[in-house]
Amino acid sequence: MIRYERFFKLEANEEKSRLMMNAFGFLMHEKEKGISGYYNLPIDGENLLKEINSYIIQEDEVYQNAENIVVIGIGGSSLGAKAIDSMLRHKYNNLKKLLFLENPDPVSISKTLNRIKKHNSIFVVISKSGGTIETTSIFKTVLKEFDMDLKSEDAKRVLIISDEGSPLCKFADFYGIKAFTIPKNVGGRFSVLSSVGIVPLSLAGYDMRNVLKGAKHMIKRFFNSKEEHIAIKALYYCKNYQKTPINVLFSYADFLEDFTKWFIQLWAESLGKIDKDGKNVGLTPVAHIGSIDQHSFLQLIMQGPRDKTVTFIKVEDFENDLKIPDISLKYIEKTDYINNHTFNELINAECDATKESLVKEGIPVDTITLDKVNEENVGELIAYFELLTSYAGAIFDINTYDQPGVEFGKKILVKKFKGN
Amino acid sequence: MIRYERFFKLEANEEKSRLMMNAFGFLMHEKEKGISGYYNLPIDGENLLKEINSYIIQEDEVYQNAENIVVIGIGGSSLGAKAIDSMLRHKYNNLKKLLFLENPDPVSISKTLNRIKKHNSIFVVISKSGGTIETTSIFKTVLKEFDMDLKSEDAKRVLIISDEGSPLCKFADFYGIKAFTIPKNVGGRFSVLSSVGIVPLSLAGYDMRNVLKGAKHMIKRFFNSKEEHIAIKALYYCKNYQKTPINVLFSYADFLEDFTKWFIQLWAESLGKIDKDGKNVGLTPVAHIGSIDQHSFLQLIMQGPRDKTVTFIKVEDFENDLKIPDISLKYIEKTDYINNHTFNELINAECDATKESLVKEGIPVDTITLDKVNEENVGELIAYFELLTSYAGAIFDINTYDQPGVEFGKKILVKKFKGN
Repeated sequence: MIRYERFFKLEANEEKSRLMMNAFGFLMHEKEKGISGYYNLPIDGENLLKEINSYIIQEDEVYQNAENIVVIGIGGSSLGAKAIDSMLRHKYNNLKKLLFLENPDPVSISKTLNRIKKHNSIFVVISKSGGTIETTSIFKTVLKEFDMDLKSEDAKRVLIISDEGSPLCKFADFYGIKAFTIPKNVGGRFSVLSSVGIVPLSLAGYDMRNVLKGAKHMIKRFFNSKEEHIAIKALYYCKNYQKTPINVLFSYADFLEDFTKWFIQLWAESLGKIDKDGKNVGLTPVAHIGSIDQHSFLQLIMQGPRDKTVTFIKVEDFENDLKIPDISLKYIEKTDYINNHTFNELINAECDATKESLVKEGIPVDTITLDKVNEENVGELIAYFELLTSYAGAIFDINTYDQPGVEFGKKILVKKFKGN
Repeated sequence: MIRYERFFKLEANEEKSRLMMNAFGFLMHEKEKGISGYYNLPIDGENLLKEINSYIIQEDEVYQNAENIVVIGIGGSSLGAKAIDSMLRHKYNNLKKLLFLENPDPVSISKTLNRIKKHNSIFVVISKSGGTIETTSIFKTVLKEFDMDLKSEDAKRVLIISDEGSPLCKFADFYGIKAFTIPKNVGGRFSVLSSVGIVPLSLAGYDMRNVLKGAKHMIKRFFNSKEEHIAIKALYYCKNYQKTPINVLFSYADFLEDFTKWFIQLWAESLGKIDKDGKNVGLTPVAHIGSIDQHSFLQLIMQGPRDKTVTFIKVEDFENDLKIPDISLKYIEKTDYINNHTFNELINAECDATKESLVKEGIPVDTITLDKVNEENVGELIAYFELLTSYAGAIFDINTYDQPGVEFGKKILVKKFKGN
């Protein structure tokens, strides 16, 4: 269960009601016409889970011996799986390791390659377009490093995830490598609940059915007009994008850090656009972890320019009863007031205290409270932020799903190596 | 060697020259009157290194058996050591592990505690004030978890780092625990080159003398007016804090991520202040890692609101010759143009391409190019950002070194547990 609370007001008026209705209608249209496919991923998920299960049964020996699921993919192809892995790992025993070969940074690639061996790894190569230079380069390096021959049994420990008909899918077909496809109408940053996230996470041992279920219910409730808070928040953010251009996500749990990275790419890339009037619109996401950043970034929120909204994510029950022991140490007795309380209580009281001090300052604050971290809540949280993003995009009246601005650099890069 | 390049112009005029002179004079004054003590840390470092060496010789048995240096500290007490550890670890063999017990998150504390044993660990408890609730709580938990008796030999595997005369120093004195002090005029976020960073990093096995040397030379050159680019950049940022309130640090190496976290707390907490006219001033730091975030956040920079400056950090030579092998794979031959190039070349070409596309858009860009990652460059980089921060603070005419805004929440917290 997740609770959403808002500590700022959106004054209602006719224009706002009209904007909200329009945006809602637009999302409904996107969903029904298949303009954006992510709304249906939780429903398609059943078939995908079956497909994954077939692979596991068919390649039983490879799968049983695999200790590492190695994802080769960057950005939208890895951030989602990484986020879910970080949130849920502490709740499982006996998961396979999930490793990411992502950045073309030679030091980190070398480090990861040193941790794995061919015989105990499955390599999941993920690229929506099928031609991501970082991903294909790292894949080739893996082939060389582990002396892999794709015409041998080695092909069984490679999986491809890509758009149907993409170069990478054709490649897979040519070598008889198992490929999972990504629906064409699902963009990279909205793809975590497609094969992009579900395949590596399922192979690692996660129960992805309940993640999908959590997302499915959220999307259903949203389209049944039962999650109006999403519309209100999106509208408030968009209407005030010049006054509060920075949206801070302040999460009180270390295991949420990778999730906030997933959110940042989703929010930044979807909403940072030139709108129909030629205006540069967008909102800048920033993520912080409490209580650590209470000791620093909080100062800027409290006393710096009033250009920020703040969303707190809090986990009510960490399902861990580690306590501050009842020890009194000479000269630091002043801190004894916390003795016998749990760390769970301490970190959440810090979250509440910080929230209260920001609300008192009149800073627009809202909170997302998970009763606990489990698969369903994770799925709901993902769907929540995806819907919030789509809604904001509809209000900005932009294309939420493209990314023309990242193409310029790619062209310059190719020129650097190939010449003109 | 580090190279600083700027791709934006600051039109010179009399007012600006006057502001720059004043700020420079102000920093000189801070240094000479000891108002801020971090300028002198690299010089004081010699004595500190001797003190650390004496401890190592005296507690030879404890030290030799220690595989883990466990830092118990939060915010300014841990981010600096973590940053340096992340940047330099891949260059060493045989370092001791450096572990951080930082956030009062029960899941991560439990995870770290499970990785260590008493007999192979030294615990470094760091709190400037000596009463940080997170730190003392975790320290007590460690005492209980490992059944430590401070009246026994166990006291030898505890070190205290705190302000002279603080409750924590008095505690250390009472139990005969070795304590290192932090100069009173050095704030937490400027303390990485004091005992706060030097002690744990030296114990882990790092050559901190050259880190101090790099910082010393930078500070000396700055005060000899040989690093004017710092002044120009600070002035540009402060003059435009309403037009470009967001400063993006875009680093092209995974091992720089923790450094950017150190930068974020330094920049946000130092400059987010109410100025003498009662105005909320400050600049919002944001950090990203290339090439990963080229695939997402770049879109927002390129097409979103023009409210950002961008600083690239690039490492010219990763000292790693990992190559993209000369393999051509059926259907993905299009990516072969990169074959036989190193990842070092690829990631840097991506950095250059991104930089060029931003410059073309007229976004204020500058670059910091490290010839390689080594101790001296790390020291210089730290000093560079500290000086930039102090300079910007002087231009804003604020107190760069206090943090009144983080105190409100602390008071609310105490009330929650103690009542009124």
